[in-house]
Amino acid sequence: MTGKVRVSAFGVSVDGFGAGPDQSLENPLGRGGPLLHHWFFPTDAFRTQHLGQPGETGVDDEFGKRSMQGLGAWILGRNMFAHSRGPWAEDDAWKGWWGDEPPYRCDVFVLTHHPRPSFAMKGGTTFHFVTNGAAAALERARAAAGDLDVRIGGGAATIRQYLRMRAIDEMHVAVSPVVLGVGEPLWAGLDLPALGYDVVESTAGERATHLKIVRKDPR
Amino acid sequence: MTGKVRVSAFGVSVDGFGAGPDQSLENPLGRGGPLLHHWFFPTDAFRTQHLGQPGETGVDDEFGKRSMQGLGAWILGRNMFAHSRGPWAEDDAWKGWWGDEPPYRCDVFVLTHHPRPSFAMKGGTTFHFVTNGAAAALERARAAAGDLDVRIGGGAATIRQYLRMRAIDEMHVAVSPVVLGVGEPLWAGLDLPALGYDVVESTAGERATHLKIVRKDPR
Repeated sequence: MTGKVRVSAFGVSVDGFGAGPDQSLENPLGRGGPLLHHWFFPTDAFRTQHLGQPGETGVDDEFGKRSMQGLGAWILGRNMFAHSRGPWAEDDAWKGWWGDEPPYRCDVFVLTHHPRPSFAMKGGTTFHFVTNGAAAALERARAAAGDLDVRIGGGAATIRQYLRMRAIDEMHVAVSPVVLGVGEPLWAGLDLPALGYDVVESTAGERATHLKIVRKDPR
Repeated sequence: MTGKVRVSAFGVSVDGFGAGPDQSLENPLGRGGPLLHHWFFPTDAFRTQHLGQPGETGVDDEFGKRSMQGLGAWILGRNMFAHSRGPWAEDDAWKGWWGDEPPYRCDVFVLTHHPRPSFAMKGGTTFHFVTNGAAAALERARAAAGDLDVRIGGGAATIRQYLRMRAIDEMHVAVSPVVLGVGEPLWAGLDLPALGYDVVESTAGERATHLKIVRKDPR
């Protein structure tokens, strides 16, 4: 049995943006981007993991906790791993946004046009850099995950790419009650019904509406 | 005291469409468009008005009922009034989608490039055809409404036009848990925060999420 390919806890604005514009070292989520995660920050799921302190329980927290369960590998777009662009520096000191002990605790495949050697972090996370495309990264992630799930972490452009490939089995999107106006579009130009996707569940959380979107037909 | 200019009970999909594609006599809401109103059809508000039968009460119904209260005039885009395009036929028999006794019961201003005489319907609705632009239509609607509200009925293009003019004070949008993939975009290319708009309330209904969006600064 092989696991699912899924998106979880991906925050999106009412007007369809998955991140704000102008990502930078100071603004890893882009301007206004943190607004998309206001539902997540107060949860026990987030606070336990990132601050070592308890947080709120409830519907949002349930979705937050589930988003980290049953995962055997991750795929991230380059821009979700780093603010830098272009070729990596030799012995690049940048090891991601997540400090010494990233929350992944498994293999993480980063899509990039520029080769870089894999490296391991504390807690079981190993970052790999895949230069031969999204399909190749998925194949490696599936192999690494075994019967656990592969999570497509983001950003929006990476999720769009895998949706177009019809490679995502299941998506949990948290729609935050905000408008951004500009940023990284998640839905724009994607005909989800034509790709076989449908919303099958909508659950009101304390600070976001949680949607479950699935691909109806088998791969 | 003058009333508000508002949008109410406007259905939109998760991916931002306010109607389906290919509007026609058979498909007044476009292909898939009725999905945007599945929250509204079972409500007491809808059924009492359109079928003369009681319906479900609850959160969705509350929003449905409020959408029809306190209105003194409406503005509709041409395509929301008729499936025809271009000049009106002489003595055009088309009197809107709503039968002999339309639910408006006040003055309704239809935006069109083509002149047509006003006409009155049973129950107090009078349709006027405004050929000198959205601002002129709004001026006439405000005058007709007095201290009641002007409702911008739609479609999506008409709402977008008035949002760009910053003429809308308050918007109630019902986000249905569906994706359409194609259709009439509501949000695309609109920078709502830059126009002064913000989401100030999100309420979970039985079949949709109800958002209140307001323009923060005075006109």
